[in-house]
Amino acid sequence: MNFTGAHILSIQQFDRGDIQRIFAVADSMEPYALRHKVTRVLEGAILGNMFFEPSTRTRVSFGSAFNLLGGNVRETTGFESTSITKGESLFDTARVLSGYSDVICMRHPHSGSVAEFAEGSRVPVINGGDGANEHPTQALLDLYTIRKELHSQGRGIDGLRIAMIGDLKHGRTVHSLCKLLCVFDKIQLTLVSPKELAMPDYIIESLREAGHQVTITDQLTSSISHVDIAYSTRIQEERFASKEEADLYRGRFRLNQTIYTEFCEPNTVIMHPLPRDSRPEANELDNDLNANPNLAIFRQTDNGVLVRMALFALVLDVADQVDKYSRDVNWYNSLRSK
Amino acid sequence: MNFTGAHILSIQQFDRGDIQRIFAVADSMEPYALRHKVTRVLEGAILGNMFFEPSTRTRVSFGSAFNLLGGNVRETTGFESTSITKGESLFDTARVLSGYSDVICMRHPHSGSVAEFAEGSRVPVINGGDGANEHPTQALLDLYTIRKELHSQGRGIDGLRIAMIGDLKHGRTVHSLCKLLCVFDKIQLTLVSPKELAMPDYIIESLREAGHQVTITDQLTSSISHVDIAYSTRIQEERFASKEEADLYRGRFRLNQTIYTEFCEPNTVIMHPLPRDSRPEANELDNDLNANPNLAIFRQTDNGVLVRMALFALVLDVADQVDKYSRDVNWYNSLRSK
Amino acid sequence: MNFTGAHILSIQQFDRGDIQRIFAVADSMEPYALRHKVTRVLEGAILGNMFFEPSTRTRVSFGSAFNLLGGNVRETTGFESTSITKGESLFDTARVLSGYSDVICMRHPHSGSVAEFAEGSRVPVINGGDGANEHPTQALLDLYTIRKELHSQGRGIDGLRIAMIGDLKHGRTVHSLCKLLCVFDKIQLTLVSPKELAMPDYIIESLREAGHQVTITDQLTSSISHVDIAYSTRIQEERFASKEEADLYRGRFRLNQTIYTEFCEPNTVIMHPLPRDSRPEANELDNDLNANPNLAIFRQTDNGVLVRMALFALVLDVADQVDKYSRDVNWYNSLRSK
Repeated sequence: MNFTGAHILSIQQFDRGDIQRIFAVADSMEPYALRHKVTRVLEGAILGNMFFEPSTRTRVSFGSAFNLLGGNVRETTGFESTSITKGESLFDTARVLSGYSDVICMRHPHSGSVAEFAEGSRVPVINGGDGANEHPTQALLDLYTIRKELHSQGRGIDGLRIAMIGDLKHGRTVHSLCKLLCVFDKIQLTLVSPKELAMPDYIIESLREAGHQVTITDQLTSSISHVDIAYSTRIQEERFASKEEADLYRGRFRLNQTIYTEFCEPNTVIMHPLPRDSRPEANELDNDLNANPNLAIFRQTDNGVLVRMALFALVLDVADQVDKYSRDVNWYNSLRSK
Repeated sequence: MNFTGAHILSIQQFDRGDIQRIFAVADSMEPYALRHKVTRVLEGAILGNMFFEPSTRTRVSFGSAFNLLGGNVRETTGFESTSITKGESLFDTARVLSGYSDVICMRHPHSGSVAEFAEGSRVPVINGGDGANEHPTQALLDLYTIRKELHSQGRGIDGLRIAMIGDLKHGRTVHSLCKLLCVFDKIQLTLVSPKELAMPDYIIESLREAGHQVTITDQLTSSISHVDIAYSTRIQEERFASKEEADLYRGRFRLNQTIYTEFCEPNTVIMHPLPRDSRPEANELDNDLNANPNLAIFRQTDNGVLVRMALFALVLDVADQVDKYSRDVNWYNSLRSK
Repeated sequence: MNFTGAHILSIQQFDRGDIQRIFAVADSMEPYALRHKVTRVLEGAILGNMFFEPSTRTRVSFGSAFNLLGGNVRETTGFESTSITKGESLFDTARVLSGYSDVICMRHPHSGSVAEFAEGSRVPVINGGDGANEHPTQALLDLYTIRKELHSQGRGIDGLRIAMIGDLKHGRTVHSLCKLLCVFDKIQLTLVSPKELAMPDYIIESLREAGHQVTITDQLTSSISHVDIAYSTRIQEERFASKEEADLYRGRFRLNQTIYTEFCEPNTVIMHPLPRDSRPEANELDNDLNANPNLAIFRQTDNGVLVRMALFALVLDVADQVDKYSRDVNWYNSLRSK
């Protein structure tokens, strides 16, 4: 695709070459995200960070990514205005707000709303999550993390062995990640969930049509013993038909250091879209994994800044100018010092 | 008036020369708002964008206008603090907040509150709307739009023929626009509303004292047949004494392309303060007007950025320095490309 | 202490030399806060202004201080996200958010939360107030104000005579100020409160251990007759056991110009942490003191910007570079003109 001036609405827009282009630009952003260097390439540009649904970390991640490129951020953090409740169309809202910025990031609770908004916008719109529909930057940062973690082991995404664990029925992030994986080759996926919360059939079919090998199970320990990536997601109790059903699965999808040591290969990377529920009764990742160097959950969120910087740079066509406007950082850098 | 360091509280402050000065500076801001050029003239300056009442588009418009001049924006989006509920006076609030910025834009639900706030402020205050009282930048952007639309037809504001349509009793924007028109010559106004929602007498008197010709009617189609501008506003059902009364008028003030084609002159410009209610039962502007090149409603909001940039530049006395601190834009510009 | 890269969590971290260092840097920030000069020393740096509890003025003060040094601000203004309610630990929240900025200012309703957050953060964290526990920048700006007011009278903090008035039991600011005063010499403190709202014993003991002279009273007028500083705080009615008890003290801790003239020395400086309750029934500072040049309450909030600029400059190790990146202000400066 031609990124310049394009809306980024769905991962379905990207082919393999597009993804590689995004990731290459994300790689080039690392010196700026790690505060070794500062760039002013977007000095004077404005991001309209339009969050019509609260999401602190996604909002701040987009905003910081734009600041790191030298731009300014104007934003909204909820349905503060009554314009939409007064019957204003998303087309009108978009047309008006797009007069205030050079690019818009939008999050909205309704599926399809961001695409509808983009039709009215005069500037590029990046989807920051529209209900159950899409959250393309989350899927990209997940895949970028997989690529980076495997790269440090001398490998690529083709041939990846991954287990996805938890609520695979409702998890927007695992759905999107599966769709992205379809443009790569020879992936082995193990889908680990309670039967009631299984991955939708249409996604499994897409994976198999792409030539991937899919195994379905509700057993955690056996499924994580030969994988490169263990991608855990939250299971909410209220998703089950009854409390008895939920109790039946309690703790069976929880990963901790003891299980990791006993069942995983030594380099298996642990991922999670966050937030992780750290309460004892949660079905997720134990805090005792924090000392495990293969716990990549925070590298995921850090990578989100790189991926979002890359998308801004591509859409506004400054990817090749970033270094030209750069200089060394002159303040104390905690990240460099650790 | 001397703009430097002045508060902008009311359109009553401006004489004809002041308005011309604001509009001339607004014109000079166009290359920056259209992203042909970037200026850093206010680099290091801070706008305190104090919205004690939600209004996303006005807030973002002010903030973006300040960013476009190179300045930073700190803001609040509602009565988040309990300081005022704890009995703090507006004087104290103003004195404290004015220590944090170079200029303040304030919106507040209470009539007169912004003027009271300005008394305590050590920096210039711009009224972003204080209840039913004033919203001077809205009135200025409306008049600026009229001037610009007519200018492209080779004409000026003197001699203007305008129809104002809808709820003329409660509409703050049409009241302010009428007051602004009083400093110009030979305006023909047609005021179209249900009798219950007629323009207040004191405004009609001011218009007539200014030598303008005022016609009052509740018939839409005849009133829009010989005007340069058809300025439509919302009628809220709850303004009527009864549902029967509201039903009586239902649809009678709605403008659509069929009516436009049949009754308007070919160059009649359609305006609206927005948001427009796009639901089918609304008494406003139809979406089928979106393809009409004379629909100026989005040019209005775009012009709002120019007018707000002009006010900041005048109040902070940098109108003559804007170009000196400018350079060409180095990123992809959607607006330039369309 | 070594400020570079340090968390600023508590006033207990500072010895006398540290306080002097902070104040010296704060002094050097004055030309920037008064808008005589602009500095870009932190251009490209990002402050994460994380307010998990509303506090407009503290939030805006931190944000403006960072802008005045040339940096950008990303922020949150409340528990908008449900991540924490979904069971996310403060460690996780901190680790994620600290990937988005160079320094974090955090406010949170729970005592001890900011220190817990700091453990997970990869960048320096400044405490913007954590419940009843600490609000170190408020204590520093209070002491900085005392120093500055006395300095203009040719004196220092050692030997200070100060009356603290109001609710000394619950007032976080007076507790912190007392702790800070313990590193200075020969202070005379008069603690004026209803008996039910007396200063906690452990603080009185610390003051006496530091060699200070402490007098306890519930009589306002006699206690303010020989002091350099009269520091007034709010008494909330609901703090009393009964309405009768509250009525007993009504108006007895209120300072106005008549009382000031009759009982105070001519140079006694009046302070208050703000907001001040300006309603007639309030137990605080009368508006008739606004014309009194010794009313320092607004100089306090102005000084807050200087102190916060100093902390940012110290923690990010740019205190010595501020002038190098500076230039003269090119816009109209209200503060300079008054």
